[in-house]
Amino acid sequence: MDLIMNRSLLSEGACFLKEEEAFSGVHKIADKVMRDIELVFGVRPTSTEAIDRLSSCAVIYGTIDRSPVLDHLSESGIIDLNAVRGKSEVYLFQVIDAPWDGGDKALVIAGSDKRGTIYGLFHLSEVLGVSPLVDWNDVRPQPKEEVRLEDGRKYISKEPSVRYRGFFINDEWPAFGTWCNKRFGGFNAEAYDHVFELLLRLKGNYLWPAMWSARFYDDGPGLANAELADEYGVVIGASHHEPCLRQGEEYKYLRGKDSIYGDAWNFRTNEEGITRFWADGLKRSGRFENVITVGMRGEADTSIMGKEATLADNIGLLRDVLKTQNRLMKEHVNPKLEQVPRMLALYKEVEPFFYGDKHTPGLIGSEELENVILMLCDDNFGNLRTLPTEEMRSHNGGYGMYYHFDYHGGPISYEWINSSYLPKVWEQMSMAYDFGIRDLWVVNVGDVCTQEFPLAYFLDLAYDFEQWGTSAINKTDAYTRRWVEQQFGGVCAEPDLKKIHQLLDGYTKIAHNRRPEAMNAEVYHPVHYQETDRLLAEIEQLMDTADELYKKIDSEAFPGFFSLVYYPAMGNLNLQKLQLLAGKNRYAAKLNLMEANGLTERMKTCMRRDQELVDEYHAIAGGKWYGMGLSEHIGFTRWNEDECRYPILMQVMPARKPRLLVSIDGTGQRSEGSAWHVNRLGLLDFKQPDVEEASFTISSLSDLDAPYKITCEAPWLSCSSHEGRLDGTRHAADRIRVRIDRGQMNGETDAQIVVQLPTGACTIIVDAKQPETGGFPENTYVDTRGYISMEAERFSAKKDAGQAGFQRIAGYGKTLSAMKVFPTTSYFTAGQNAPYLEYQFVFHQAGSYEAELYMEPSNPVTKDNTLHYGIQVNDGAIDVLNVIPAGMKVGESSDAEWSAGVLDNIRRHSSEVVCKAGLNSLRIYAVSPGFVLEKLVIYPAGKKPAESYLGPPETYYVGRKNEAALN
Amino acid sequence: MDLIMNRSLLSEGACFLKEEEAFSGVHKIADKVMRDIELVFGVRPTSTEAIDRLSSCAVIYGTIDRSPVLDHLSESGIIDLNAVRGKSEVYLFQVIDAPWDGGDKALVIAGSDKRGTIYGLFHLSEVLGVSPLVDWNDVRPQPKEEVRLEDGRKYISKEPSVRYRGFFINDEWPAFGTWCNKRFGGFNAEAYDHVFELLLRLKGNYLWPAMWSARFYDDGPGLANAELADEYGVVIGASHHEPCLRQGEEYKYLRGKDSIYGDAWNFRTNEEGITRFWADGLKRSGRFENVITVGMRGEADTSIMGKEATLADNIGLLRDVLKTQNRLMKEHVNPKLEQVPRMLALYKEVEPFFYGDKHTPGLIGSEELENVILMLCDDNFGNLRTLPTEEMRSHNGGYGMYYHFDYHGGPISYEWINSSYLPKVWEQMSMAYDFGIRDLWVVNVGDVCTQEFPLAYFLDLAYDFEQWGTSAINKTDAYTRRWVEQQFGGVCAEPDLKKIHQLLDGYTKIAHNRRPEAMNAEVYHPVHYQETDRLLAEIEQLMDTADELYKKIDSEAFPGFFSLVYYPAMGNLNLQKLQLLAGKNRYAAKLNLMEANGLTERMKTCMRRDQELVDEYHAIAGGKWYGMGLSEHIGFTRWNEDECRYPILMQVMPARKPRLLVSIDGTGQRSEGSAWHVNRLGLLDFKQPDVEEASFTISSLSDLDAPYKITCEAPWLSCSSHEGRLDGTRHAADRIRVRIDRGQMNGETDAQIVVQLPTGACTIIVDAKQPETGGFPENTYVDTRGYISMEAERFSAKKDAGQAGFQRIAGYGKTLSAMKVFPTTSYFTAGQNAPYLEYQFVFHQAGSYEAELYMEPSNPVTKDNTLHYGIQVNDGAIDVLNVIPAGMKVGESSDAEWSAGVLDNIRRHSSEVVCKAGLNSLRIYAVSPGFVLEKLVIYPAGKKPAESYLGPPETYYVGRKNEAALN
Repeated sequence: MDLIMNRSLLSEGACFLKEEEAFSGVHKIADKVMRDIELVFGVRPTSTEAIDRLSSCAVIYGTIDRSPVLDHLSESGIIDLNAVRGKSEVYLFQVIDAPWDGGDKALVIAGSDKRGTIYGLFHLSEVLGVSPLVDWNDVRPQPKEEVRLEDGRKYISKEPSVRYRGFFINDEWPAFGTWCNKRFGGFNAEAYDHVFELLLRLKGNYLWPAMWSARFYDDGPGLANAELADEYGVVIGASHHEPCLRQGEEYKYLRGKDSIYGDAWNFRTNEEGITRFWADGLKRSGRFENVITVGMRGEADTSIMGKEATLADNIGLLRDVLKTQNRLMKEHVNPKLEQVPRMLALYKEVEPFFYGDKHTPGLIGSEELENVILMLCDDNFGNLRTLPTEEMRSHNGGYGMYYHFDYHGGPISYEWINSSYLPKVWEQMSMAYDFGIRDLWVVNVGDVCTQEFPLAYFLDLAYDFEQWGTSAINKTDAYTRRWVEQQFGGVCAEPDLKKIHQLLDGYTKIAHNRRPEAMNAEVYHPVHYQETDRLLAEIEQLMDTADELYKKIDSEAFPGFFSLVYYPAMGNLNLQKLQLLAGKNRYAAKLNLMEANGLTERMKTCMRRDQELVDEYHAIAGGKWYGMGLSEHIGFTRWNEDECRYPILMQVMPARKPRLLVSIDGTGQRSEGSAWHVNRLGLLDFKQPDVEEASFTISSLSDLDAPYKITCEAPWLSCSSHEGRLDGTRHAADRIRVRIDRGQMNGETDAQIVVQLPTGACTIIVDAKQPETGGFPENTYVDTRGYISMEAERFSAKKDAGQAGFQRIAGYGKTLSAMKVFPTTSYFTAGQNAPYLEYQFVFHQAGSYEAELYMEPSNPVTKDNTLHYGIQVNDGAIDVLNVIPAGMKVGESSDAEWSAGVLDNIRRHSSEVVCKAGLNSLRIYAVSPGFVLEKLVIYPAGKKPAESYLGPPETYYVGRKNEAALN
Repeated sequence: MDLIMNRSLLSEGACFLKEEEAFSGVHKIADKVMRDIELVFGVRPTSTEAIDRLSSCAVIYGTIDRSPVLDHLSESGIIDLNAVRGKSEVYLFQVIDAPWDGGDKALVIAGSDKRGTIYGLFHLSEVLGVSPLVDWNDVRPQPKEEVRLEDGRKYISKEPSVRYRGFFINDEWPAFGTWCNKRFGGFNAEAYDHVFELLLRLKGNYLWPAMWSARFYDDGPGLANAELADEYGVVIGASHHEPCLRQGEEYKYLRGKDSIYGDAWNFRTNEEGITRFWADGLKRSGRFENVITVGMRGEADTSIMGKEATLADNIGLLRDVLKTQNRLMKEHVNPKLEQVPRMLALYKEVEPFFYGDKHTPGLIGSEELENVILMLCDDNFGNLRTLPTEEMRSHNGGYGMYYHFDYHGGPISYEWINSSYLPKVWEQMSMAYDFGIRDLWVVNVGDVCTQEFPLAYFLDLAYDFEQWGTSAINKTDAYTRRWVEQQFGGVCAEPDLKKIHQLLDGYTKIAHNRRPEAMNAEVYHPVHYQETDRLLAEIEQLMDTADELYKKIDSEAFPGFFSLVYYPAMGNLNLQKLQLLAGKNRYAAKLNLMEANGLTERMKTCMRRDQELVDEYHAIAGGKWYGMGLSEHIGFTRWNEDECRYPILMQVMPARKPRLLVSIDGTGQRSEGSAWHVNRLGLLDFKQPDVEEASFTISSLSDLDAPYKITCEAPWLSCSSHEGRLDGTRHAADRIRVRIDRGQMNGETDAQIVVQLPTGACTIIVDAKQPETGGFPENTYVDTRGYISMEAERFSAKKDAGQAGFQRIAGYGKTLSAMKVFPTTSYFTAGQNAPYLEYQFVFHQAGSYEAELYMEPSNPVTKDNTLHYGIQVNDGAIDVLNVIPAGMKVGESSDAEWSAGVLDNIRRHSSEVVCKAGLNSLRIYAVSPGFVLEKLVIYPAGKKPAESYLGPPETYYVGRKNEAALN
């Protein structure tokens, strides 16, 4: 017989057994699970301390060695705790026959430790269909009449893949701070209760609390925050410049002339005061579960010693600091230092102290760092930096990674709203794991809200790397699907779940191409290749989907939908739209096109929409998230919000006589038809054999009635209109679609479309001569526009080398996908053991060409500032090239190259190659880890294709069918 | 007894003696003068053919050898015709006792020839106070009761300085063409009657009729235009590509397969047809008074032979052409070829054919060119090009100059409205005369209208070079004064005449700095040195003056005032204002300053005003000038009006929180007070000892109430306000004036002004430390801002060399005046016979400096593309430098350097100089003709002062008093 949970059984008697021996925090979690049950069944289960009062759907929860009942069940052979005992954060989840009187079936949740039990309890909630975001996002489970846990069901959870897994609440003003103050009266335990619950439900165990202005150990009030964390088993950590459980800003408050801590953050001149400061921190909070930061940095992110200090001076100082800190921890935390979880951040100026140089040995391998977790960091924009070399990976403390979903700093902050894209998180964090970073993963989530989706992924990846990690290539889509079902499976039908999925994928991919704060009117080209119009169309479609769901979703599910999907998606999309419209507006205004004026109205609508979205977010669910939308997010001109600027609304004044402008869509070609200036334009789209439609636009420069006429004598071309008139106000532009009927051509390939305009005539020269493609293999790219643009996945051959080979990462690329070599840690020698990709393409002329690679902006994984690949054309020599610009300073916003990389989320690297006329083949060889190829563009030296953000769209290749015209 | 003219005497009997022997054109002019008399006295005088019917105020007019009465008076010894006889265009104007019965006094006007008589008749009008613009501009004379010509009054006019003096009606669409068609039904004799009258009253004698679309010899109708010109003694010419009295477009109409003229504009392949075409032209019009263009150019301004032709081929061809043309003229015009006025234009490709090269002798000095006027040309923008060398000046045909007040071509046309500045016309045309160009002066006046003021000057200069030419330096002001009196002396009081004078001078000077069509939002810097605000203030004042006069002027005088003064002045000023506001708008919008929105309203007002001005111009005086304002004139992007664009109206959206920006006026320094970004600004104005006031501006970025507070502890500084608030809409910015009380400083020189803003605090660091000036002579410039900017006229010493020396041309300079050496034809060797100017200045540091000279954009006067000056610092070597960029192509709009020069109306040239700490002296030596120095800026190498259009304002110099703050 199954264990049955339903309304009547839950009303019958106590459901949860509450043993007094259990951890108080575990009971608190059990209470939360009971509330979850109430949401599902409408009845709140009760608990009892007397086993014989349990109803017939009983839940026994406890932690090994803290539960007489579990001991008893184990001793009776009903459950087997050996599979759990001694493990970390593991639980047994088993349906048993209740061995006590009156009982029937019972569910046993037995944790190997406190967190194991808690995860086990929350597992019950999930089994009942309760989302981990039930509390944080008001995600409502589907009400149920009954749930059956089948007889004999038994599940033993895995040990988490990464030891410490958590997030960092950072840059807490104005959003998180306002939220805490308004809703809870401060950064107190009432607020943190929700944060801890979110963390634990997502199977995290580790937190860096807010520390910009807040003081975790004072705000509880008093130690209430730390005590609550400890009850829940939440391990508290702190960022890299907060050693010995002291928060960053604490010294500022406590220092002074008469302070017992002295008045200098200087271990040389104020050793006594600083030591005491640390000792008191450890005494205060050392009894809780922590990962204690060690080491020392200067104030406000500066270096610890003055400029005149040598490397040896600095290393000596840091060693002394570590010795002192280790001593203090032995005294005040645990004499068995190896049992004190400690962390040293290898970051900024600490990095050279760790590695040393030729003459000065660094701290690497020194006894002071034994058992200390060495924490590495991304470049603040989600790209890993230096990773442990093979020999370093044996360090007994292991490694950590500090990653960012939110960053407050240069070149441009991103704090308002989620802009992280799962394939990137997967690609980077699984590489981190491959490189041995498995002891601590912490991600900066800023104000937390809207980051729930990537945060869940990050923590699931850390918890179960086997399921989601390196071996799970291209499973982010499945993850998204699962996550959507988890949140909305109970309230949405299948087609709507798909739409939510599309929405999440769509907006994060667009944000991956450019984060909202970093968007401006100059990012995408307003006309070239129609990249702005294409993206606008995609955005409009996604926004329509979102609005359709918005109208449909029922009121119970609305807060969850709004906070997790609608708000972050619409916030992102609307802002991207605003800036794209601003780009179009600017372009139109510079040409005096009347359509500029209509665009300003649309921009204003976006601006209003932006505010309305925040307002609605702040109002729904009784104002639950009030404050969380407060971050500035439009038109940053610096890293910080100061001096941010909204897009300019550019309006034009009508010309005083009727004037029209013809422009070829997707190009900068244009003409008013004047006899004196350009009046012949080229339409080249039809040179691509699969293109059947192209277009040009007629735009008005005045508000006067302006007629046009279109004539074309070629029987194989048809225009969507042959005459019209514009008034420049309600009717400011006409797009004319031109279709080709290749069956009618009879050998003709050239034609003219003449557009009569008020100030002359513009002739559009249509060239539909198709390239020779006969005899070339499938996927051979054929030049029709003076360049070849190839998607990385469209190789003609791929050579693996043993286990190693390029694999396609779907969706990971600005325009399609990306190719990366696995295993991610290997180095290769091009021409010897290196895997490669081979591309084929046809140019009409032999000569010198530029081969430009579009790559993820990966940083070097080693300290030598190199990231190599090999390139070879035909049978020429292999050039091994470094994509990292000489002297590039990763993470320094003063470095223009690095900054451009993280804002554009692309790195481009060009080299000269010699091509022959006809078919060429080009090989790209893997050399260094971190090489992720998205796209290749090859063009005659000095003849760069028209500028654009995404680069020229893919060139026609043999076998392509029915692509839309891409100019 | 005087000759009295009054209403009753005029009514008494016939006034004018009309002899049948006189030229018919002279009678027609006499009729015009009689109408003038009617305007003055209200009574139209009559004429009679019978001398005894003359009243007691009699006018006898006639031409020597065409007047029995004059013969008689001469024979009787009453007048002496010998002073006139045989001269060119001279007249005797004498009051005599009437020797006939019933007569009393008579005025005798006796011309040496037809035009002499006509000028004499118009001289009477002028004596009566009638403006030469009475017909063309409806300038009304002051009505008079009586005029007395004193007994014995006798005046013999001079021979004109330049033989042929006239103008060219060009680019006649849309303005002149519309005017002709609407008012007269075509380019016919009725229209030309007014043009001829204008020309003759202004003492011109020569005209190039409209030829873009019009055909002078067909439009009369038939030959009526040419016949009327001939009656009036108006000599007809044609531009450089219209030989043998054939208009440019004629061949187009007449050519064809079966045409007697053939179908090729090619003297080699179609010699017969072309020769016949010319012969028929000469037969048709050769009987009139002409200056016949000789030579031949390719069609549509192209070169005459193909690219493969050698120089010798071309010269040979041109020689053959000339031979043929000379032969035809002997046959069809006058066998005495030396009596046929002929002109060859030395322009574009003809220039090398004339000069030849080392191996190939050019046409220079060849017999075919004997007695032919060689016509040179400016660069289309009022700057002379190559001028005759000393030896060339002996050419027996003499030289001509084709000058421009209007141009349709690159880099940017100027056609709408007068934008010529008299000092420039004086400087250039008097140099032309000095270089021997004295036989033909023709100026392109486009549609004529609004060019009347500079045209009158040009023709007066050509008529009476002794009075207005080289020796009359700085008399353009006196000319303007005279001209204003001539037009408005009768209707305006003295203060208003002064205002009209200021207005004419003001708007033309502003147009001299930048022509209206070439203005755009990027010309003047919107903030640096406050050059935009200063110019705007000047424009506002001039516009106020214009509006004040507009309201005052009486209705009779209104059309003259509007067409000659108000419309060109306001048109110019309003358009300049529009573009300056657009520059400010653009700057403010880029900073998200709310004041941008107010600026767009002001821009719209200017745009409306622009249209209203044209509309009013077209409506007044019964629509007399309808059409003349039709040329496009805003925002040219190319040389032609096609694709011109109005300035964009940039609007901003308010920030969502109160934000204010502090900026130091005249600089780009600004701050919102954020702790993270720039929050300290420098105010350096008070370092200049004579500056007593400076300012900064607080601007709003939002439409929210935003308060600020200003504190300053220095007792010697006072701010005009200490607190305030902005609302971003009605109140979007506050300018805070800071005054210094140097008496209170007590040795202090540094102070801080702290401005509390909603997002932080901005500290303005005031540095009022004054430079050491003790012991330095007057006019020594002292660095306070990192550079020295000197006005050319503020030299400390000037050295002449014999007759030669620099002289100041008042007002000729973008910011003050200019210095040029006279005589204008001399070359000098720097350090030997060269005149120089010496400047003194103090730098605080020794080192390498850039010395940048601001000069008029003069072209080289010789073919070697050089224009040299010498520069010497302290006792260093003299560097002789060429200001012409290597390879500069004068007149080619594809040449960026030349184009920049004519648009900016400045040429800058830099050289490196070494300065010492303390007092330095710098000498500028004259070397080549055409060197006109306006300003000198010296700055440390690599530290160019902030960019601006006019350059940094003048630096403080010892002895300067009470200048306004110039940042």
